[in-house]
Amino acid sequence: MYLYLIRHGIAVDLDPIAPDSTLTDDLRPLTKEGRNKFKQVAERLQISGLKLDLIITSPLIRAKQTADLLIDRQLGSQVEVSPHLSPTGNLPGWLTEWNRRSRENLDISKLALVGHEPNLSQWAELLVFGRIYNQLVLKKGGIIGLKFPNGKIEIGTAQLHCLIPPKYLV
Amino acid sequence: MYLYLIRHGIAVDLDPIAPDSTLTDDLRPLTKEGRNKFKQVAERLQISGLKLDLIITSPLIRAKQTADLLIDRQLGSQVEVSPHLSPTGNLPGWLTEWNRRSRENLDISKLALVGHEPNLSQWAELLVFGRIYNQLVLKKGGIIGLKFPNGKIEIGTAQLHCLIPPKYLV
Repeated sequence: MYLYLIRHGIAVDLDPIAPDSTLTDDLRPLTKEGRNKFKQVAERLQISGLKLDLIITSPLIRAKQTADLLIDRQLGSQVEVSPHLSPTGNLPGWLTEWNRRSRENLDISKLALVGHEPNLSQWAELLVFGRIYNQLVLKKGGIIGLKFPNGKIEIGTAQLHCLIPPKYLV
Repeated sequence: MYLYLIRHGIAVDLDPIAPDSTLTDDLRPLTKEGRNKFKQVAERLQISGLKLDLIITSPLIRAKQTADLLIDRQLGSQVEVSPHLSPTGNLPGWLTEWNRRSRENLDISKLALVGHEPNLSQWAELLVFGRIYNQLVLKKGGIIGLKFPNGKIEIGTAQLHCLIPPKYLV
C-alpha cells in the first residue's frame, strides 16, 4: 500500500490591502505560475510511471485544481472530495472514514491525498513515527510518499520513501 | 547550512558462485547502468541549481565514482575522502572530525556526503529526530537533503527537506 501526500500548488493570496469580499480562503485558485509548475510536476510523475488508483482532495479550490492537474496527466481517473482533508481536518477523522469503506478499498494500492500544510507533513510524521516532530518540509506542489509494508494505512507503521520539493521535478 | 546525504549508484555485485579474488567489496565499481542513471541524477540536480561547496566521500570505489560524477556535472569542485563515511563509520566519529576543522568550515554552507546504507538514512534520522527509526528508504543513487536552521550540523536539529529516489530524476 502506497500513500502519496500532495500539497496544492501556488495559489492567489488574499489581498490584505484591498480585500475582495468575493474571494475567501476556500475559493483561492492556483496562480498561473502555480498551474504551470504543477503541470510539470505531474508530467514528471507520469514519466516515473506513477499510476494512482484513487485521488482524494480537500474541498478547497486550490487543492481541487491541483488534483485536476493529476487527472489531466492521466495519473489517475477517480477523484473524491473529503472534508477531512481541509485545513481543519485531522488524520484520525480521515482514517476513520477510510476504514469505514474497507471493502471498496481492497482494489486500492496507490492512493493520493491532496491537501494543505502543516496538516500533510504532520500526518506523514504520525504515520511513519507515531508522533509529530514538525521537521518535514513540504513545499507547495511537493510530494511525500509513504509505503505501508503491512498493506494497511496505520499510524506508526509507514516507511518514508520520498519527499520531493517541486524544484527537482520542473 | 544544508547537508546532502547521497548513496552511491548501482555497483557490480561480488559473484557468490565464482568469487574473483581480486574483486573485494571496497573495489566494486559502478555498473554501466549505475553510471548512466547517476549521470542523469547529477544533471537534474544541476538543473535545479544545486551547487556544493564540498563533497566528502567514502573511500570505497563505488562511492568515489559517484562523487566524481557530481564533479563532472560541476555540482562541486572539491572532493575529500573520509574513512568515517565507509560502511564501518559512524555519525559521532564523522561529526567529531567535522567539528575539529571548524575554521575551514566557515565558508561551507552546502555539503554533500557520499556513502552507504543503512548508515546514511540512520544518520539522517539521528540528525533530524535524535534517534534511529530505520523508516527512511534511501535507494542507490538517492538523495536526502537536510537543513540546519541553527547553521551548525548537530544531532536532533535538522529539518528534512528532501528524500529523492533516483527514479524521479532520470
